[in-house]
Amino acid sequence: MKKVNIGILGLGTIGSGLYRLIMKNRELIRNKSGIDINIKKASDLNPEKKDELNIDDGVFTTSSDDVVMDDEIDIVVELIGGTAVARDLVKKAIERKKHIVTANKALLARFKNEIFPMLVENRVELGCEASVGGGIPIIRTLKEALVGDSIYKIVGILNGTTNFILTKMVKEGIDFESALRTAQEMGFAEADPTLDISGGDAKHKITILASLAFNTDVDMDRVYTEGIESIEPKDIRFSMEFGFVLKLLAIAEKKDSGIMVRVHPALISSSSPLAAVNWEDNAIMVYSEFLGKSMYYGKGAGAKPTSSAVVANIVDIALKIKSNYEYNSKAYSFFNNLHQLDFNESEARYYFRFNALDRPGILSKISGILGKNNISIASVIQKESEEEGEYVPLVMLTHRALEANVKKAFEEIVNLKEVKGDNKFIRVIDE
Amino acid sequence: MKKVNIGILGLGTIGSGLYRLIMKNRELIRNKSGIDINIKKASDLNPEKKDELNIDDGVFTTSSDDVVMDDEIDIVVELIGGTAVARDLVKKAIERKKHIVTANKALLARFKNEIFPMLVENRVELGCEASVGGGIPIIRTLKEALVGDSIYKIVGILNGTTNFILTKMVKEGIDFESALRTAQEMGFAEADPTLDISGGDAKHKITILASLAFNTDVDMDRVYTEGIESIEPKDIRFSMEFGFVLKLLAIAEKKDSGIMVRVHPALISSSSPLAAVNWEDNAIMVYSEFLGKSMYYGKGAGAKPTSSAVVANIVDIALKIKSNYEYNSKAYSFFNNLHQLDFNESEARYYFRFNALDRPGILSKISGILGKNNISIASVIQKESEEEGEYVPLVMLTHRALEANVKKAFEEIVNLKEVKGDNKFIRVIDE
Repeated sequence: MKKVNIGILGLGTIGSGLYRLIMKNRELIRNKSGIDINIKKASDLNPEKKDELNIDDGVFTTSSDDVVMDDEIDIVVELIGGTAVARDLVKKAIERKKHIVTANKALLARFKNEIFPMLVENRVELGCEASVGGGIPIIRTLKEALVGDSIYKIVGILNGTTNFILTKMVKEGIDFESALRTAQEMGFAEADPTLDISGGDAKHKITILASLAFNTDVDMDRVYTEGIESIEPKDIRFSMEFGFVLKLLAIAEKKDSGIMVRVHPALISSSSPLAAVNWEDNAIMVYSEFLGKSMYYGKGAGAKPTSSAVVANIVDIALKIKSNYEYNSKAYSFFNNLHQLDFNESEARYYFRFNALDRPGILSKISGILGKNNISIASVIQKESEEEGEYVPLVMLTHRALEANVKKAFEEIVNLKEVKGDNKFIRVIDE
Repeated sequence: MKKVNIGILGLGTIGSGLYRLIMKNRELIRNKSGIDINIKKASDLNPEKKDELNIDDGVFTTSSDDVVMDDEIDIVVELIGGTAVARDLVKKAIERKKHIVTANKALLARFKNEIFPMLVENRVELGCEASVGGGIPIIRTLKEALVGDSIYKIVGILNGTTNFILTKMVKEGIDFESALRTAQEMGFAEADPTLDISGGDAKHKITILASLAFNTDVDMDRVYTEGIESIEPKDIRFSMEFGFVLKLLAIAEKKDSGIMVRVHPALISSSSPLAAVNWEDNAIMVYSEFLGKSMYYGKGAGAKPTSSAVVANIVDIALKIKSNYEYNSKAYSFFNNLHQLDFNESEARYYFRFNALDRPGILSKISGILGKNNISIASVIQKESEEEGEYVPLVMLTHRALEANVKKAFEEIVNLKEVKGDNKFIRVIDE
């Protein structure tokens, strides 16, 4: 039996969940792995956590330095979140040769090129499974299961809040605000949901996945990101007539010309396995040369699923460091230096909805503008007018087209005198 | 860079795929893992494989002993299949302290309690990811990602041939024989498809998964196994009216009273993520205490996906043995000794179809027999007669009932004078 001493930074939702999991399953983990996880220190600014979790004297502390500076601690588990305090603490821990397990997606997405070289320099391991997809073993899959394979695309539903909201909108036909309110009432959305609904959280996560899958340092600030705030029930309804379901997708693609990483609402075929991923669940579809299309599905957030991933990382690292292993620096090197393509260079099919005058000639005018921009129409549905007046929704689906061309054409069309009010385009992702 | 010498036994579909993968991606693997996979020897009885795969002199051999006896080989990759030759070769290799990677589900399911102790005794590693679910990283997930979690249920679509046939039957309404013929024509079914369609292949696989998930030695001969040979289009059609899809499921459950492992056709809700797993694809839904419900989906067979899993196992083992690691015997111990429940003790909802006389009183007679056996009816559909005569299909869905009771009631009902010809019951799995 090999004992590993861990120190936990932060006893919020995930930290408390981790504490409880280890208290409950310590023996199970010993039996399964031969590793005995000993919580040497656990810190939180809130002193009430000690009694709440029934933590022994000498283990609980309100000082994170007590954790990071403890010479007997092998692994520091950072569950504070954010990039202010956590960044300094993680760096301090690495400098003191402590191995790191973290669920902090913002920290990794933003500061990976600061942290990864420090890992190698200090010969320190990093476990970050919990940073993407909660308890879904996606990072293990990319790094280990697909080590012999060439990954060329990832399509993920990486944010539970937005997936819950969109599922609610799809199933009940309600609008974004009502769905968001329900999500907040049920605890699936924060009081300030901005980071989730804007796509920012998914951006952090796809940045991490793309960096690990393509072994290149993806620049998060160049990841095109569009949220779900402006999704309307009518677009969900109309797109269903084409056999589509609307999801917020995080996509990373490797092409000959470079990589393209982006987050935006997208329509997918209702027969796709991703279309069955509903409510707060997450899923990641991975495309690789040999394995082909594979998908990983589960709970993308929450104390229990996330703790499960954290423990797996602790055991992984403990098995290495308690077995006289030799450090393998390859795991944290970005040996590729791939060009990051601009979103305007992306291609997709497109769903358009124009609010257009119900008059002969308008379709020909619109399709003329599309054609001029190399966009050809695959099908058109002219809807009955929903409101008073002569303007009706004109819904169309295109063949594959270039994002830059679509934006140009869309701009020109919405400026036609026969088109007014709210118009929309949504990308269609064929997977 | 660390070089690992491997020997491949068998250059059939998977062996050839593995050879090609390593030839193509050797440098990629080096970059990603620091491991350089060197194929020291590759054997096949067919000497034409040498030219077919363009294998160097000194590497190809028709003698498997050349592989097993080579002192410089670290890892023997057994891709012969079956339990005759492979069993002896694997044991011989283990005795010579060679680490083993295998895709051989029959060997592991049948002889795990012979092989596992030998591994520990000889301090030898085993990689068997490719034995279940082709390239889907399910064994890695059970053993590593869920090391801190308590797994209590697995529901898998583990056989591509039967899933292809059932998908064809569902989508096109054709009968079993026609669907099987198409599967054979398209290469998704063997000329002799018995092992697949009888559920035998899925039985091998769920035996392995259950043993690893519950850390207990599951007796394959006590796994209830029923194939898809007698599935009729009308049951697929009728069950769709209840919102179900028919799949061949392999199920392993842990209860307080023991474990239950079984393979049989089953109805699942069409909204389940498993319902979207079509054609030759496989998927495994895993239920654990902390992660909750998670699913792993992909190609369950074929040279390329399977090779991808084999390479991942080779790299895993190479990273250990080339890093002075200490052997961890826990990975191959069945520390639980769980009672294996009889299938008659299982509970499910049930779909019944009786070919019954279209006469007043018959429903009350049938429901009387069901009631006497503690089976209560949830809903009934009386169909129009499909053939000439007064007999019509009476289709019903029950609440949860005990398998033993269902068999007893079914027997009694089909012996009623008002019931004749072909009758059927199918288990409904709520997941």
